[in-house]
Amino acid sequence: MRDLYYDQLDGIVDDLVSMASTVREAVLESTQALLNADQAAAEAVISGDKSVDEARELIEEQAFQLLATQQPVAGDLRMLVATLRMVADLERIGDLAGHVAKVARLRMPAVAVPPTLRETITTMASVAETMVDSAARILAERDVEAAADLEREDDQMDQLRRSLFRTLLSDEWSYGVEPAIDIALLGRYYERIGDHAVSMGRRVIYLVTGEHPVTVA
Amino acid sequence: MRDLYYDQLDGIVDDLVSMASTVREAVLESTQALLNADQAAAEAVISGDKSVDEARELIEEQAFQLLATQQPVAGDLRMLVATLRMVADLERIGDLAGHVAKVARLRMPAVAVPPTLRETITTMASVAETMVDSAARILAERDVEAAADLEREDDQMDQLRRSLFRTLLSDEWSYGVEPAIDIALLGRYYERIGDHAVSMGRRVIYLVTGEHPVTVA
Repeated sequence: MRDLYYDQLDGIVDDLVSMASTVREAVLESTQALLNADQAAAEAVISGDKSVDEARELIEEQAFQLLATQQPVAGDLRMLVATLRMVADLERIGDLAGHVAKVARLRMPAVAVPPTLRETITTMASVAETMVDSAARILAERDVEAAADLEREDDQMDQLRRSLFRTLLSDEWSYGVEPAIDIALLGRYYERIGDHAVSMGRRVIYLVTGEHPVTVA
Repeated sequence: MRDLYYDQLDGIVDDLVSMASTVREAVLESTQALLNADQAAAEAVISGDKSVDEARELIEEQAFQLLATQQPVAGDLRMLVATLRMVADLERIGDLAGHVAKVARLRMPAVAVPPTLRETITTMASVAETMVDSAARILAERDVEAAADLEREDDQMDQLRRSLFRTLLSDEWSYGVEPAIDIALLGRYYERIGDHAVSMGRRVIYLVTGEHPVTVA
Protein backbone atom coordinates (compact mmCIF):
# COMPACT_ATOMS: atom_id res chain seq x y z
CA MET A 1 0.00 0.00 0.00
CA ARG A 2 2.75 2.46 0.93
CA ASP A 3 4.68 1.50 -2.22
CA LEU A 4 1.64 2.34 -4.31
CA TYR A 5 1.46 5.63 -2.41
CA TYR A 6 5.04 6.55 -3.30
CA ASP A 7 4.43 5.47 -6.89
CA GLN A 8 1.45 7.81 -6.96
CA LEU A 9 3.47 10.68 -5.48
CA ASP A 10 6.19 10.13 -8.10
CA GLY A 11 3.52 9.85 -10.77
CA ILE A 12 2.19 13.29 -9.89
CA VAL A 13 5.64 14.85 -10.27
CA ASP A 14 6.04 13.05 -13.62
CA ASP A 15 2.67 14.39 -14.74
CA LEU A 16 3.65 17.92 -13.73
CA VAL A 17 6.91 17.64 -15.66
CA SER A 18 5.02 16.33 -18.68
CA MET A 19 2.51 19.20 -18.41
CA ALA A 20 5.42 21.65 -18.22
CA SER A 21 6.75 20.17 -21.43
CA THR A 22 3.33 20.55 -23.11
CA VAL A 23 2.96 24.23 -22.17
CA ARG A 24 6.55 24.95 -23.16
CA GLU A 25 5.69 23.52 -26.60
CA ALA A 26 2.63 25.78 -26.64
CA VAL A 27 4.84 28.82 -25.92
CA LEU A 28 7.14 27.81 -28.80
CA GLU A 29 4.29 27.16 -31.20
CA SER A 30 2.40 30.35 -30.36
CA THR A 31 5.60 32.32 -30.99
CA GLN A 32 5.98 30.61 -34.36
CA ALA A 33 2.36 31.54 -35.11
CA LEU A 34 3.13 35.12 -34.10
CA LEU A 35 6.36 35.65 -36.00
CA ASN A 36 5.31 33.82 -39.18
CA ALA A 37 1.57 34.52 -39.21
CA ASP A 38 1.24 30.74 -39.16
CA GLN A 39 -2.47 29.98 -38.96
CA ALA A 40 -2.10 26.24 -38.36
CA ALA A 41 0.25 26.84 -35.44
CA ALA A 42 -2.13 29.40 -33.92
CA GLU A 43 -5.10 27.06 -34.20
CA ALA A 44 -3.10 24.19 -32.72
CA VAL A 45 -2.22 26.23 -29.63
CA ILE A 46 -5.74 27.58 -29.18
CA SER A 47 -7.45 24.21 -29.53
CA GLY A 48 -4.66 22.45 -27.58
CA ASP A 49 -5.39 24.51 -24.46
CA LYS A 50 -8.29 22.19 -23.70
CA SER A 51 -5.90 19.29 -23.10
CA VAL A 52 -3.81 21.52 -20.80
CA ASP A 53 -6.93 22.23 -18.76
CA GLU A 54 -7.73 18.52 -18.65
CA ALA A 55 -4.20 17.73 -17.47
CA ARG A 56 -4.66 20.26 -14.67
CA GLU A 57 -7.94 18.66 -13.59
CA LEU A 58 -6.39 15.20 -13.63
CA ILE A 59 -3.35 16.21 -11.56
CA GLU A 60 -5.52 18.16 -9.11
CA GLU A 61 -7.80 15.19 -8.67
CA GLN A 62 -4.86 12.82 -8.10
CA ALA A 63 -3.34 15.16 -5.53
CA PHE A 64 -6.70 15.50 -3.84
CA GLN A 65 -7.20 11.73 -3.72
CA LEU A 66 -3.79 11.27 -2.12
CA LEU A 67 -4.58 13.95 0.44
CA ALA A 68 -7.93 12.31 1.19
CA THR A 69 -6.84 8.69 1.37
CA GLN A 70 -3.21 8.74 2.53
CA GLN A 71 -3.25 11.69 4.89
CA PRO A 72 0.35 12.56 4.11
CA VAL A 73 2.38 14.59 6.57
CA ALA A 74 5.46 16.81 6.54
CA GLY A 75 7.40 16.78 3.26
CA ASP A 76 4.84 14.79 1.28
CA LEU A 77 2.07 17.10 2.37
CA ARG A 78 4.12 20.16 1.40
CA MET A 79 4.81 18.57 -1.97
CA LEU A 80 1.12 17.93 -2.63
CA VAL A 81 0.15 21.45 -1.59
CA ALA A 82 2.91 22.83 -3.84
CA THR A 83 1.57 20.63 -6.65
CA LEU A 84 -1.80 22.32 -6.44
CA ARG A 85 -0.12 25.69 -6.88
CA MET A 86 2.27 24.60 -9.63
CA VAL A 87 -0.46 23.03 -11.70
CA ALA A 88 -2.26 26.39 -11.58
CA ASP A 89 0.93 28.13 -12.79
CA LEU A 90 1.22 25.67 -15.66
CA GLU A 91 -2.40 26.10 -16.65
CA ARG A 92 -1.91 29.88 -16.76
CA ILE A 93 1.18 29.49 -18.95
CA GLY A 94 -1.00 27.50 -21.35
CA ASP A 95 -3.65 30.25 -21.27
CA LEU A 96 -1.03 32.90 -21.96
CA ALA A 97 0.37 30.96 -24.93
CA GLY A 98 -3.24 30.90 -26.16
CA HIS A 99 -3.43 34.69 -25.80
CA VAL A 100 -0.25 35.07 -27.89
CA ALA A 101 -1.75 32.79 -30.56
CA LYS A 102 -4.97 34.83 -30.57
CA VAL A 103 -3.11 38.12 -31.14
CA ALA A 104 -1.26 36.39 -34.00
CA ARG A 105 -4.52 35.12 -35.51
CA LEU A 106 -6.26 38.48 -35.20
CA ARG A 107 -3.69 40.12 -37.52
CA MET A 108 -3.32 37.34 -40.08
CA PRO A 109 -2.40 37.23 -42.90
CA ALA A 110 -0.24 40.12 -41.63
CA VAL A 111 2.45 39.56 -39.01
CA ALA A 112 1.45 41.28 -35.74
CA VAL A 113 5.07 42.14 -34.85
CA PRO A 114 6.62 45.06 -36.82
CA PRO A 115 10.11 44.34 -38.21
CA THR A 116 11.74 46.78 -35.80
CA LEU A 117 10.59 44.71 -32.80
CA ARG A 118 10.98 41.26 -34.27
CA GLU A 119 14.29 40.66 -32.52
CA THR A 120 13.12 41.85 -29.10
CA ILE A 121 9.93 39.77 -29.22
CA THR A 122 11.87 36.73 -30.46
CA THR A 123 14.26 37.08 -27.54
CA MET A 124 11.45 37.61 -25.01
CA ALA A 125 9.68 34.49 -26.27
CA SER A 126 12.90 32.53 -26.13
CA VAL A 127 13.63 33.68 -22.57
CA ALA A 128 10.06 32.82 -21.53
CA GLU A 129 10.38 29.36 -23.02
CA THR A 130 13.78 28.84 -21.39
CA MET A 131 12.28 29.86 -18.06
CA VAL A 132 9.52 27.26 -18.35
CA ASP A 133 12.22 24.73 -19.21
CA SER A 134 14.32 25.78 -16.19
CA ALA A 135 11.29 25.43 -13.90
CA ALA A 136 10.58 21.95 -15.29
CA ARG A 137 14.21 20.97 -14.78
CA ILE A 138 14.18 22.23 -11.18
CA LEU A 139 11.01 20.21 -10.62
CA ALA A 140 12.20 17.01 -12.31
CA GLU A 141 15.71 16.94 -10.89
CA ARG A 142 15.29 18.97 -7.70
CA ASP A 143 18.13 20.97 -9.18
CA VAL A 144 18.47 23.83 -6.70
CA GLU A 145 21.44 25.29 -8.62
CA ALA A 146 19.20 25.88 -11.66
CA ALA A 147 17.26 28.38 -9.55
CA ALA A 148 20.07 30.88 -10.14
CA ASP A 149 19.49 30.47 -13.91
CA LEU A 150 15.84 31.26 -13.41
CA GLU A 151 16.55 34.46 -11.47
CA ARG A 152 19.03 35.56 -14.14
CA GLU A 153 16.50 34.85 -16.89
CA ASP A 154 13.92 36.82 -14.92
CA ASP A 155 16.25 39.85 -14.84
CA GLN A 156 16.77 39.50 -18.57
CA MET A 157 13.00 39.44 -19.12
CA ASP A 158 12.71 42.64 -17.11
CA GLN A 159 15.33 44.36 -19.29
CA LEU A 160 13.59 43.16 -22.45
CA ARG A 161 10.28 44.60 -21.27
CA ARG A 162 11.91 47.97 -20.62
CA SER A 163 13.55 47.92 -24.04
CA LEU A 164 10.20 47.04 -25.64
CA PHE A 165 8.47 50.01 -24.05
CA ARG A 166 11.33 52.37 -24.93
CA THR A 167 10.85 51.42 -28.59
CA LEU A 168 7.06 51.77 -28.45
CA LEU A 169 7.32 55.22 -26.89
CA SER A 170 10.21 56.57 -28.95
CA ASP A 171 9.78 59.24 -31.62
CA GLU A 172 10.82 56.68 -34.21
CA TRP A 173 7.75 54.54 -33.62
CA SER A 174 5.90 54.82 -36.93
CA TYR A 175 3.46 51.93 -36.77
CA GLY A 176 0.68 53.70 -34.91
CA VAL A 177 -1.61 52.67 -32.09
CA GLU A 178 -2.83 49.18 -33.01
CA PRO A 179 0.57 47.43 -33.28
CA ALA A 180 1.71 49.31 -30.16
CA ILE A 181 -1.19 47.85 -28.17
CA ASP A 182 -0.54 44.38 -29.60
CA ILE A 183 3.10 44.59 -28.61
CA ALA A 184 2.40 45.95 -25.12
CA LEU A 185 0.00 43.07 -24.46
CA LEU A 186 2.34 40.48 -25.99
CA GLY A 187 5.15 41.78 -23.79
CA ARG A 188 2.88 41.41 -20.80
CA TYR A 189 1.96 37.82 -21.77
CA TYR A 190 5.58 36.71 -22.12
CA GLU A 191 6.49 38.48 -18.90
CA ARG A 192 3.68 36.68 -17.06
CA ILE A 193 4.81 33.31 -18.49
CA GLY A 194 8.21 34.06 -16.97
CA ASP A 195 6.60 35.05 -13.64
CA HIS A 196 4.75 31.74 -13.44
CA ALA A 197 7.98 29.84 -14.17
CA VAL A 198 9.74 31.76 -11.39
CA SER A 199 6.87 31.05 -9.04
CA MET A 200 7.10 27.31 -9.81
CA GLY A 201 10.85 27.23 -9.45
CA ARG A 202 10.69 28.99 -6.10
CA ARG A 203 8.14 26.53 -4.79
CA VAL A 204 10.42 23.60 -5.57
CA ILE A 205 13.39 25.37 -3.98
CA TYR A 206 11.27 25.89 -0.89
CA LEU A 207 10.35 22.21 -0.83
CA VAL A 208 13.97 21.15 -1.10
CA THR A 209 15.67 23.74 1.11
CA GLY A 210 12.87 24.90 3.41
CA GLU A 211 13.73 28.47 2.42
CA HIS A 212 10.61 30.53 1.83
CA PRO A 213 10.01 31.56 -1.76
CA VAL A 214 9.90 35.29 -2.44
CA THR A 215 6.56 36.44 -3.78
CA VAL A 216 6.42 37.29 -7.48
CA ALA A 217 4.72 40.64 -7.97
CA MET B 1 -10.03 19.41 20.21
CA ARG B 2 -12.60 19.02 17.42
CA ASP B 3 -14.32 22.25 18.51
CA LEU B 4 -11.04 24.07 18.17
CA TYR B 5 -10.68 22.46 14.76
CA TYR B 6 -14.03 23.82 13.58
CA ASP B 7 -13.21 27.21 15.06
CA GLN B 8 -9.99 27.17 13.07
CA LEU B 9 -11.81 26.19 9.85
CA ASP B 10 -14.31 29.02 10.39
CA GLY B 11 -11.44 31.35 11.21
CA ILE B 12 -9.83 30.65 7.85
CA VAL B 13 -13.02 31.55 6.00
CA ASP B 14 -13.30 34.74 8.08
CA ASP B 15 -9.70 35.60 7.21
CA LEU B 16 -10.37 35.03 3.50
CA VAL B 17 -13.44 37.27 3.65
CA SER B 18 -11.41 39.92 5.43
CA MET B 19 -8.63 39.64 2.84
CA ALA B 20 -11.26 39.99 0.09
CA SER B 21 -12.42 43.19 1.75
CA THR B 22 -8.84 44.50 1.90
CA VAL B 23 -8.14 43.87 -1.79
CA ARG B 24 -11.53 45.29 -2.76
CA GLU B 25 -10.51 48.48 -0.93
CA ALA B 26 -7.22 48.40 -2.85
CA VAL B 27 -9.13 48.20 -6.15
CA LEU B 28 -11.24 51.20 -5.10
CA GLU B 29 -8.26 53.22 -3.92
CA SER B 30 -6.11 52.45 -6.97
CA THR B 31 -8.98 53.61 -9.19
CA GLN B 32 -9.22 56.82 -7.18
CA ALA B 33 -5.47 57.27 -7.67
CA LEU B 34 -5.93 56.67 -11.39
CA LEU B 35 -8.88 58.96 -12.04
CA ASN B 36 -7.73 61.82 -9.83
CA ALA B 37 -3.95 61.51 -10.14
CA ASP B 38 -4.05 61.08 -6.35
CA GLN B 39 -0.49 60.42 -5.24
CA ALA B 40 -1.33 59.53 -1.63
CA ALA B 41 -3.87 56.96 -2.77
CA ALA B 42 -1.39 55.42 -5.21
CA GLU B 43 1.32 55.15 -2.56
CA ALA B 44 -1.13 53.65 -0.06
CA VAL B 45 -2.08 50.87 -2.50
CA ILE B 46 1.50 50.15 -3.52
CA SER B 47 2.86 50.01 0.02
CA GLY B 48 -0.29 48.23 1.27
CA ASP B 49 0.37 45.26 -1.01
CA LYS B 50 2.88 43.97 1.52
CA SER B 51 0.15 43.38 4.08
CA VAL B 52 -1.89 41.53 1.44
CA ASP B 53 1.06 39.23 0.84
CA GLU B 54 1.42 38.71 4.59
CA ALA B 55 -2.26 37.85 4.89
CA ARG B 56 -1.80 35.26 2.15
CA GLU B 57 1.14 33.67 3.95
CA LEU B 58 -0.75 33.56 7.22
CA ILE B 59 -3.86 31.95 5.71
CA GLU B 60 -1.74 29.48 3.74
CA GLU B 61 0.15 28.51 6.87
CA GLN B 62 -3.07 28.06 8.86
CA ALA B 63 -4.57 25.89 6.12
CA PHE B 64 -1.38 23.88 5.96
CA GLN B 65 -1.31 23.37 9.73
CA LEU B 66 -4.89 22.10 9.69
CA LEU B 67 -4.07 19.72 6.84
CA ALA B 68 -1.02 18.47 8.72
CA THR B 69 -2.51 18.08 12.19
CA GLN B 70 -6.21 17.34 11.65
CA GLN B 71 -6.09 15.25 8.50
CA PRO B 72 -9.47 16.51 7.35
CA VAL B 73 -11.52 14.49 4.89
CA ALA B 74 -14.32 15.06 2.38
CA GLY B 75 -15.91 18.52 2.55
CA ASP B 76 -13.40 20.03 4.98
CA LEU B 77 -10.49 18.84 2.86
CA ARG B 78 -12.08 20.29 -0.28
CA MET B 79 -12.61 23.56 1.58
CA LEU B 80 -8.97 23.76 2.65
CA VAL B 81 -7.72 22.94 -0.84
CA ALA B 82 -10.07 25.58 -2.25
CA THR B 83 -8.72 28.03 0.35
CA LEU B 84 -5.21 27.61 -1.02
CA ARG B 85 -6.45 28.54 -4.49
CA MET B 86 -8.67 31.41 -3.37
CA VAL B 87 -5.94 33.01 -1.32
CA ALA B 88 -3.79 33.01 -4.47
CA ASP B 89 -6.63 34.72 -6.40
CA LEU B 90 -6.92 37.37 -3.70
CA GLU B 91 -3.19 38.00 -3.68
CA ARG B 92 -3.24 38.50 -7.45
CA ILE B 93 -6.13 40.96 -7.14
CA GLY B 94 -3.96 42.92 -4.71
CA ASP B 95 -1.04 42.79 -7.18
CA LEU B 96 -3.27 44.00 -10.01
CA ALA B 97 -4.58 46.92 -7.92
CA GLY B 98 -0.89 47.74 -7.36
CA HIS B 99 -0.31 47.69 -11.14
CA VAL B 100 -3.20 50.15 -11.63
CA ALA B 101 -1.71 52.42 -8.94
CA LYS B 102 1.71 52.26 -10.64
CA VAL B 103 0.29 53.33 -14.02
CA ALA B 104 -1.45 56.20 -12.22
CA ARG B 105 1.77 57.23 -10.46
CA LEU B 106 3.84 57.03 -13.64
CA ARG B 107 1.71 59.74 -15.32
CA MET B 108 1.31 62.09 -12.34
CA PRO B 109 0.66 64.97 -12.04
CA ALA B 110 -1.29 64.21 -15.24
CA VAL B 111 -4.27 61.87 -15.21
CA ALA B 112 -3.44 58.67 -17.14
CA VAL B 113 -6.99 58.26 -18.45
CA PRO B 114 -8.01 60.65 -21.29
CA PRO B 115 -11.42 62.33 -20.80
CA THR B 116 -13.00 60.34 -23.63
CA LEU B 117 -12.39 57.07 -21.76
CA ARG B 118 -13.01 58.28 -18.23
CA GLU B 119 -16.51 56.85 -18.15
CA THR B 120 -15.57 53.43 -19.55
CA ILE B 121 -12.63 53.01 -17.17
CA THR B 122 -14.76 54.19 -14.23
CA THR B 123 -17.38 51.58 -15.10
CA MET B 124 -14.78 48.83 -15.61
CA ALA B 125 -13.26 49.60 -12.22
CA SER B 126 -16.66 49.64 -10.61
CA VAL B 127 -17.62 46.30 -12.19
CA ALA B 128 -14.28 44.79 -11.09
CA GLU B 129 -14.83 45.99 -7.54
CA THR B 130 -18.42 44.71 -7.53
CA MET B 131 -17.15 41.32 -8.74
CA VAL B 132 -14.68 41.08 -5.85
CA ASP B 133 -17.54 42.00 -3.53
CA SER B 134 -19.80 39.33 -5.09
CA ALA B 135 -17.08 36.70 -4.68
CA ALA B 136 -16.62 37.69 -1.03
CA ARG B 137 -20.37 37.47 -0.47
CA ILE B 138 -20.55 34.03 -2.08
CA LEU B 139 -17.69 32.96 0.17
CA ALA B 140 -19.05 34.46 3.40
CA GLU B 141 -22.68 33.42 2.96
CA ARG B 142 -22.35 30.40 0.68
CA ASP B 143 -24.81 32.34 -1.43
CA VAL B 144 -25.08 30.20 -4.55
CA GLU B 145 -27.65 32.54 -6.10
CA ALA B 146 -25.09 35.36 -6.15
CA ALA B 147 -23.10 33.30 -8.65
CA ALA B 148 -25.52 34.42 -11.35
CA ASP B 149 -24.63 38.05 -10.49
CA LEU B 150 -20.97 37.24 -10.96
CA GLU B 151 -21.51 35.68 -14.39
CA ARG B 152 -23.57 38.71 -15.46
CA GLU B 153 -20.89 41.09 -14.23
CA ASP B 154 -18.31 39.03 -16.11
CA ASP B 155 -20.30 39.48 -19.35
CA GLN B 156 -20.49 43.19 -18.67
CA MET B 157 -16.71 43.32 -18.17
CA ASP B 158 -16.26 41.59 -21.51
CA GLN B 159 -18.44 44.19 -23.25
CA LEU B 160 -16.53 47.02 -21.58
CA ARG B 161 -13.23 45.60 -22.78
CA ARG B 162 -14.52 45.46 -26.36
CA SER B 163 -15.82 49.01 -26.11
CA LEU B 164 -12.45 50.15 -24.74
CA PHE B 165 -10.57 48.66 -27.68
CA ARG B 166 -13.04 50.05 -30.20
CA THR B 167 -12.31 53.54 -28.84
CA LEU B 168 -8.54 53.03 -28.82
CA LEU B 169 -8.56 51.82 -32.43
CA SER B 170 -11.08 54.29 -33.85
CA ASP B 171 -10.09 57.14 -36.18
CA GLU B 172 -11.15 59.59 -33.47
CA TRP B 173 -8.39 58.45 -31.10
CA SER B 174 -6.22 61.54 -30.87
CA TYR B 175 -4.11 60.86 -27.79
CA GLY B 176 -1.36 58.86 -29.45
CA VAL B 177 0.51 55.74 -28.47
CA GLU B 178 1.41 56.20 -24.80
CA PRO B 179 -2.11 56.69 -23.40
CA ALA B 180 -3.33 53.89 -25.69
CA ILE B 181 -0.83 51.47 -24.14
CA ASP B 182 -1.71 52.65 -20.63
CA ILE B 183 -5.40 52.10 -21.29
CA ALA B 184 -4.90 48.69 -22.93
CA LEU B 185 -2.91 47.51 -19.91
CA LEU B 186 -5.36 49.04 -17.43
CA GLY B 187 -8.21 47.30 -19.22
CA ARG B 188 -6.30 44.06 -18.94
CA TYR B 189 -5.70 44.60 -15.18
CA TYR B 190 -9.37 45.24 -14.42
CA GLU B 191 -10.40 42.31 -16.59
CA ARG B 192 -7.99 40.01 -14.69
CA ILE B 193 -9.33 41.26 -11.34
CA GLY B 194 -12.76 40.18 -12.58
CA ASP B 195 -11.40 36.81 -13.74
CA HIS B 196 -9.96 36.10 -10.30
CA ALA B 197 -13.28 37.01 -8.67
CA VAL B 198 -15.09 34.62 -11.03
CA SER B 199 -12.55 31.92 -10.28
CA MET B 200 -13.14 32.36 -6.52
CA GLY B 201 -16.89 32.40 -6.86
CA ARG B 202 -16.87 29.22 -8.93
CA ARG B 203 -14.75 27.44 -6.36
CA VAL B 204 -17.26 28.19 -3.62
CA ILE B 205 -20.14 27.08 -5.84
CA TYR B 206 -18.29 23.84 -6.45
CA LEU B 207 -17.81 23.34 -2.72
CA VAL B 208 -21.47 23.93 -2.03
CA THR B 209 -23.07 22.15 -4.97
CA GLY B 210 -20.41 19.66 -6.08
CA GLU B 211 -20.74 21.05 -9.59
CA HIS B 212 -17.35 21.45 -11.22
CA PRO B 213 -16.25 25.04 -11.81
CA VAL B 214 -15.70 26.06 -15.43
CA THR B 215 -12.14 27.14 -16.09
CA VAL B 216 -11.54 30.84 -16.55
CA ALA B 217 -9.47 31.50 -19.65
